[in-house]
Amino acid sequence: MNDIAGKDKVGLYELFVELFHADFKGRLSLGILGNHLLNCAGLHAAARGFGMSRINEINYTWVLSRLVIEMNRFPLKNERFYISTWVEDVYRLFTNRNYTVYDADRNVMGYVRSVWAMIDMDSRKPVDLISLYGDKLTSYICKDEPCPIEGPTRFRLKEQVEPECVCMPKYSDIDINGHFNSIKYIEHILDLFPVEFHDRHEVRRFEIAYQSEGRSGDELYFYRHPCAASENEYAVEVKKNGAELLCRALVKFAGD
Amino acid sequence: MNDIAGKDKVGLYELFVELFHADFKGRLSLGILGNHLLNCAGLHAAARGFGMSRINEINYTWVLSRLVIEMNRFPLKNERFYISTWVEDVYRLFTNRNYTVYDADRNVMGYVRSVWAMIDMDSRKPVDLISLYGDKLTSYICKDEPCPIEGPTRFRLKEQVEPECVCMPKYSDIDINGHFNSIKYIEHILDLFPVEFHDRHEVRRFEIAYQSEGRSGDELYFYRHPCAASENEYAVEVKKNGAELLCRALVKFAGD
Repeated sequence: MNDIAGKDKVGLYELFVELFHADFKGRLSLGILGNHLLNCAGLHAAARGFGMSRINEINYTWVLSRLVIEMNRFPLKNERFYISTWVEDVYRLFTNRNYTVYDADRNVMGYVRSVWAMIDMDSRKPVDLISLYGDKLTSYICKDEPCPIEGPTRFRLKEQVEPECVCMPKYSDIDINGHFNSIKYIEHILDLFPVEFHDRHEVRRFEIAYQSEGRSGDELYFYRHPCAASENEYAVEVKKNGAELLCRALVKFAGD
Repeated sequence: MNDIAGKDKVGLYELFVELFHADFKGRLSLGILGNHLLNCAGLHAAARGFGMSRINEINYTWVLSRLVIEMNRFPLKNERFYISTWVEDVYRLFTNRNYTVYDADRNVMGYVRSVWAMIDMDSRKPVDLISLYGDKLTSYICKDEPCPIEGPTRFRLKEQVEPECVCMPKYSDIDINGHFNSIKYIEHILDLFPVEFHDRHEVRRFEIAYQSEGRSGDELYFYRHPCAASENEYAVEVKKNGAELLCRALVKFAGD
C-alpha cells in the first residue's frame, strides 16, 4: 500500500472493503478498520524513519495505548475509501496520532485518535521519546489537520457485575509478541452484543484503553455494563483471571 | 490490488504480511492467507466478466465448495509474496480454480486447489455453468500451469467422538450473506489445537469441504479426531446442532 499524498507530514492510503471484511450488514468490520489504522500508522512511521522494524533493531517497539474511533458511517462492501494519518503531538512518554477516514469523494466518514508509547522490549517499560528522538519525531508534528472528536475519556464500571464471558486466548488470538492481539479485543468486545443487537444498531464511537498485556494461558474475563448516562452506551472491562485489568472500552451505538 | 501479470488467463497479485496478520510464530495466519486467496479469485473473476458483483445482479453468487492449501513454508511478517490464480477446468456444476504462492524471488511457497459452484441466491441450488456461460468461462481455462498437489480427498471421522468445542456463532463470525464466514471456520478449526501445539508444529496441508451453510442461531459442534494412518494428521467435522454436517476438514502438520 503506497502513500498517495506525497506530503511531508500527512500520509494518505487508499483502501477497499473486501467481501469477507464486511459484517453481515455489509459494513466494514470495526476490527478490520482497526487493523487498517494500525497498518497505515506502521507505513507512515516506517517512511519517516521510526517504523516498527527500525526500532525493533534497537530492541524497542511501539505499543498502542489508546484508540478512539468515531464514525458517521462505515465504508460498505466493495467501497473504496481513504485513510489519512499524521502525528498530532509528541510528549516524553506518549505520542498522539490522528486519522481521518474519507469516502471516494473525500467526504469525511469518521475520525480517529490514538495514543502510542515506545517501550523497551525486555523491560516492557516506556522509553523517553524526546530525549531519544527529539527533532526526528517532533519535526513531523502537524497541527493544521482537524480531528474534531473528543479524546480518550476516563470511565470505570460503576458496580461489579458478573462476567459476560470467560475465555482462554486461543491460537488465533495471540499476536506476534505472544500477547492477546489488540485487534482481537475489539472483535471480542463487539461479540458481547448479540447478532440481533448489531442488526438494529451501528457503532458510532468505540474507545479502548489498553492497560496491561494478556498472554496465552491467562483466563480472560469480559465484563459489560450499560452506562447510566446514556442509552446505547456500554462500558466493557477485560480482566486477566478476573483480577488484573487488561483493557477497558466504551462503546456508543446509534439505533433504536 | 492490481493484477500485475497482464496475462489473459493467469492473474498475479502482490501481497505483504502485515504485522497483525502474522501468528505468534511470525507466520502469515492461515485464515488471512485464505482471505487473500478468495480475494484474488474475486479480482481475477471480476476482471474477466464473471465476478461476484456482476453475477449478483442476476441473483447468482459464487460459493466455495472445497479448498486445499499445501505450503512448503508460510510467508513471514513483513515479507512480500505473490499469489497467481487461474481456472483449471469448468464443469456443469463446478469450476476448479488453482493458485501458486510465490516468494519475492519467485520460489514456490505452496499450491492451492479450490472448487466453486455458482448458486441461485433464492433457491440456493447450483446453476449450470456450461449452459449459462459456455465459452465465456471455458475460454479462460488454463492447462499449462502446474499445480502438483493432490486434490480434495474423501475422508470421514471413523468413530463418533465427543465434541471438542460447542459454540454459537457470534457477530464477527457472520458474513455478509448471514452465514458462518468460510474463513472463520479455518480460524476456529486451528483454534482447536493448543497454542503449545502450534508452537511445535506448522500446517503443511489444510483441506476443507463446505457442505452446508451455518447461520446465526445455529449451535456449532466441532469434532476432532487424530487420523490413524498418519501422526500429525487430524480430521475435523463441524455439525449444526450436533447433527447436520456443515463442513469437514483434514489438517496435516509438520513438526515433532
